[in-house]
Amino acid sequence: MSVMRLGFVHIRVTDLEEARNHYSNTMGMKVVHEEPGKLWLKCWDEYDHHSLVLEEGGVGLVKLGYKVQTKDDLERYEKRAQQFGCTTGRVSAGENLTVGDGVAISVPSGHRVELYDEIEYVGTDTGALNPDPWPRDGRGIAAHWIDHALVAADDPGLLERFFTEALDFHVAERAITNISHPEVLGSWMACGESPHDIAVIKGPDAKLHHFAFHLEDWNAILRAGDIMSMDDVSVDIGPTRHGITRGTTIYFFDPSGNRNEVFAGLGYRTFPDFPTVNWTEDQLAKGIVYISRELNEAFTTVFT
Amino acid sequence: MSVMRLGFVHIRVTDLEEARNHYSNTMGMKVVHEEPGKLWLKCWDEYDHHSLVLEEGGVGLVKLGYKVQTKDDLERYEKRAQQFGCTTGRVSAGENLTVGDGVAISVPSGHRVELYDEIEYVGTDTGALNPDPWPRDGRGIAAHWIDHALVAADDPGLLERFFTEALDFHVAERAITNISHPEVLGSWMACGESPHDIAVIKGPDAKLHHFAFHLEDWNAILRAGDIMSMDDVSVDIGPTRHGITRGTTIYFFDPSGNRNEVFAGLGYRTFPDFPTVNWTEDQLAKGIVYISRELNEAFTTVFT
Amino acid sequence: MSVMRLGFVHIRVTDLEEARNHYSNTMGMKVVHEEPGKLWLKCWDEYDHHSLVLEEGGVGLVKLGYKVQTKDDLERYEKRAQQFGCTTGRVSAGENLTVGDGVAISVPSGHRVELYDEIEYVGTDTGALNPDPWPRDGRGIAAHWIDHALVAADDPGLLERFFTEALDFHVAERAITNISHPEVLGSWMACGESPHDIAVIKGPDAKLHHFAFHLEDWNAILRAGDIMSMDDVSVDIGPTRHGITRGTTIYFFDPSGNRNEVFAGLGYRTFPDFPTVNWTEDQLAKGIVYISRELNEAFTTVFT
Amino acid sequence: MSVMRLGFVHIRVTDLEEARNHYSNTMGMKVVHEEPGKLWLKCWDEYDHHSLVLEEGGVGLVKLGYKVQTKDDLERYEKRAQQFGCTTGRVSAGENLTVGDGVAISVPSGHRVELYDEIEYVGTDTGALNPDPWPRDGRGIAAHWIDHALVAADDPGLLERFFTEALDFHVAERAITNISHPEVLGSWMACGESPHDIAVIKGPDAKLHHFAFHLEDWNAILRAGDIMSMDDVSVDIGPTRHGITRGTTIYFFDPSGNRNEVFAGLGYRTFPDFPTVNWTEDQLAKGIVYISRELNEAFTTVFT
Repeated sequence: MSVMRLGFVHIRVTDLEEARNHYSNTMGMKVVHEEPGKLWLKCWDEYDHHSLVLEEGGVGLVKLGYKVQTKDDLERYEKRAQQFGCTTGRVSAGENLTVGDGVAISVPSGHRVELYDEIEYVGTDTGALNPDPWPRDGRGIAAHWIDHALVAADDPGLLERFFTEALDFHVAERAITNISHPEVLGSWMACGESPHDIAVIKGPDAKLHHFAFHLEDWNAILRAGDIMSMDDVSVDIGPTRHGITRGTTIYFFDPSGNRNEVFAGLGYRTFPDFPTVNWTEDQLAKGIVYISRELNEAFTTVFT
Repeated sequence: MSVMRLGFVHIRVTDLEEARNHYSNTMGMKVVHEEPGKLWLKCWDEYDHHSLVLEEGGVGLVKLGYKVQTKDDLERYEKRAQQFGCTTGRVSAGENLTVGDGVAISVPSGHRVELYDEIEYVGTDTGALNPDPWPRDGRGIAAHWIDHALVAADDPGLLERFFTEALDFHVAERAITNISHPEVLGSWMACGESPHDIAVIKGPDAKLHHFAFHLEDWNAILRAGDIMSMDDVSVDIGPTRHGITRGTTIYFFDPSGNRNEVFAGLGYRTFPDFPTVNWTEDQLAKGIVYISRELNEAFTTVFT
Repeated sequence: MSVMRLGFVHIRVTDLEEARNHYSNTMGMKVVHEEPGKLWLKCWDEYDHHSLVLEEGGVGLVKLGYKVQTKDDLERYEKRAQQFGCTTGRVSAGENLTVGDGVAISVPSGHRVELYDEIEYVGTDTGALNPDPWPRDGRGIAAHWIDHALVAADDPGLLERFFTEALDFHVAERAITNISHPEVLGSWMACGESPHDIAVIKGPDAKLHHFAFHLEDWNAILRAGDIMSMDDVSVDIGPTRHGITRGTTIYFFDPSGNRNEVFAGLGYRTFPDFPTVNWTEDQLAKGIVYISRELNEAFTTVFT
Repeated sequence: MSVMRLGFVHIRVTDLEEARNHYSNTMGMKVVHEEPGKLWLKCWDEYDHHSLVLEEGGVGLVKLGYKVQTKDDLERYEKRAQQFGCTTGRVSAGENLTVGDGVAISVPSGHRVELYDEIEYVGTDTGALNPDPWPRDGRGIAAHWIDHALVAADDPGLLERFFTEALDFHVAERAITNISHPEVLGSWMACGESPHDIAVIKGPDAKLHHFAFHLEDWNAILRAGDIMSMDDVSVDIGPTRHGITRGTTIYFFDPSGNRNEVFAGLGYRTFPDFPTVNWTEDQLAKGIVYISRELNEAFTTVFT
């Protein structure tokens, strides 16, 4: 058994109403619960209670929640994280809304990752009986699900070791300085078959680069870009192709300055025997922005 | 640990040269080895030695090979299959070209399934260092990989039980007679996150309905359809949308009459906690051919 | 100067409310005017007052309206139609809602075609000042415009002669019996650069085969097909590729049994010097349904 | 009658072999004739002898050739151009390879435009009898045809007047300073139904901004971008959506620095009564790069 997926992203936003509008009307998420200063949202194709928590006050990542299969997984990963040298703690059922008992890990880059095996089941908007392929009443970009997060770390190689050794992730793609004396500059890691459930690039510890919404294909990326323009969303890069993961993408910012991505393309399946793809530093811009082979300044300097 | 994927399909063809032309020039596979009366082929995006074995003489399925992670998996699944009541046997390294020791199982529907954990590694056509997203010299349809097979069984429910209980597959979608007294008419089962690595529908035991090639998206499906017309390939159904799996598809026949499919759309990820989608018999035509909601006669009667 | 485009289609429907639902909620047209037993509708990307008139009582075509540039065009084409041997008549301003004075022609196949140069201008839903590429509040299939009609004629060659000689259309593609002794079986004719503004195939005089809505591309065709399934629309053929025109398509029926098409692909521009493409009878099924190369019975027998 | 289309673009390139490689292997054109220092090329979907002339020595535009229907058109437009105040001259048959007698006009912006009504007919690569929708042996981007050119002019309004008044073009879209005191900053003009056969923006007289290749859709744009990356083509902007014309696009440079575009989307038909779309200066970046709403410096400063 292993980690199943990125279950929720919990971030800070400077203005909750602006954030509500962005994630709800532009991204198409549904508000499933709200309390003063806090919103819980889910995408139409997700069956768990929520995948995004917005907390007013500041900007940046509070924590990432990953769902595991069983309580045994919780214990095993807690022990492994401790053995790796991480500080861990217990999370009581209900501390995260509708989420069961969990384990909190301060990973080597300083980010807070929580594991849990239970969360209230809600179901997707199309249901599980003779479903339509998509909901007729989708709003805005109508993102399918929150897919992955890219975090920054002063030592990406160490974080890669943590996720692979302690949490059983495997490395789909890796950015290195060069072949002869490789130093890890970035790592795209999967707990399942998707190219990445977590990724890391070199940058300031404990910071977030972006989290990503899954869309169905390149046409959905164009439609998303059109909607960003209609809704005055600040676009960072794209639409373009990634070399890394082969996906197609637009990077953009929520009203608070947290970077989002729309990402399409489960372009290959990363089985446990998948041969890790390596990108050398001289080809890294191509790896990220395949078509123009150029990164803008914001991409490499703006973290929240 | 579990079964990783459908590794190879071994079929009979009436005419090896016609089959070579179909799978090589139309589907875009590469012939990796040949012996009198036999061909081994792989797709450009597969890294194992081969995924298709063609054997001259007749028509229909010889066996399906599924790759597992370790030798322990082989032993565990052998034991579980025996406990389920299946006849099993050992396969020596080399009996399947470049494949290591394995286990052969006569599954309840009479199909031969072989498990193995080793096969010669060849690598994809784009490589694992700074790769392009697709090979510039792709031929014909340029299928990415062989994705799944759909077999017939007199008792689909029994075969579903075998794959889930003995081999740890989970059920992504299921066709049933009705909700109140459900009888299994078909089952789409995954060992990983894809909607199906094996599927079964009611029909004559030991027969093949089709095996499928993965394409990237709906546009690739159109291009594949165009090439089928250019190459005089016999088309069964499509292009259309599946309700079941949400994928897009064309069914067609190789020159010997074995049914193939081009399938696009890893439209959702089937995690172990994925809520099985049910289709009732009255909606089954819609489940298979979502747009027209009509099945032709060949689809439900032609097996090889 | 010449005929500009198919301006409106006027048909009979058996049930006005069912037709309203189909053309409004499924096709995404807007009802611009209604009177007892009659509805006028337009698509979002059309700037004239209406493009479809629905009249309760029966089924089939009442008339086709083609817009010309000037009053001089009206007179010239009236004279030419008379010289060709057609019965013509004058249409007074207002006989067609918001449409100016016109000319009615009983074309050789017995269909009624009306020419006019004035109709109330309404504007598209995206406007003409800094417009978005598509309207955010589009409904259903959100068809861009009504693009062309295909009518039946006992003598398609005669109707081709009428449209080219009397109305200055040019022949983009033509279906013939064979090369050596060609007899015209069908003709796809353009007044502008699109592959066809009117088409004709052999069949019963005065009957309609279908009229078509323009969509942007193959992805919009899939989405349209999905919506047809959601809305229980009866599908005739498709999605598929046309050989003739290279377009992509679905044929389907409105609730009264009038055949519609969604058509994508201004795949080439038919300039006045465009070399007519010929299709021989043995390749005609491929010309119409390029991928499967098979026509169903309804396609060749159902006219309204 | 009127001008039919942009027939050929004649440019200078610094290195003929690099240019041959770019236009042939990357863009997919075919070299139809060559002489020392000069190449003639055509796209697969064009039926005239050539659409691009490359002349070694320098960079930038030599002339644009527009094809008209008849010799009467030549004379009429010659007279109209003279009445507009332009210097004109006669071009003898053969001065442009396989092109008949023509008229050369020095348009108000100083560009050389030549009109002609005859050029050797070659036919498209798919032929005119039972054709496939695309050629199986296409190379690289496999552009359909050269579609339009965008030139710079110190007085775009004057050039718009020339093309509309003297050559019967109509204005599809126009960029203006503002609504109340509009000054023309750019103009997208059509001789047929396409959004633009010539366009002009404010800039240095007699200079070229880019000429464009038509592709079928947004997916072809992605594939083109992938090929640009594989072939180390310098990309300027894109892939993205245009607000103006609604098309999708990538701007890039040939090895000599002449800007090219791949453009998809005959998104609407510009009939003679098409209501001109206006873009105000404050929305012009959105008009050109709809998604990011930002122009880079090269786009507004690099002309050849």
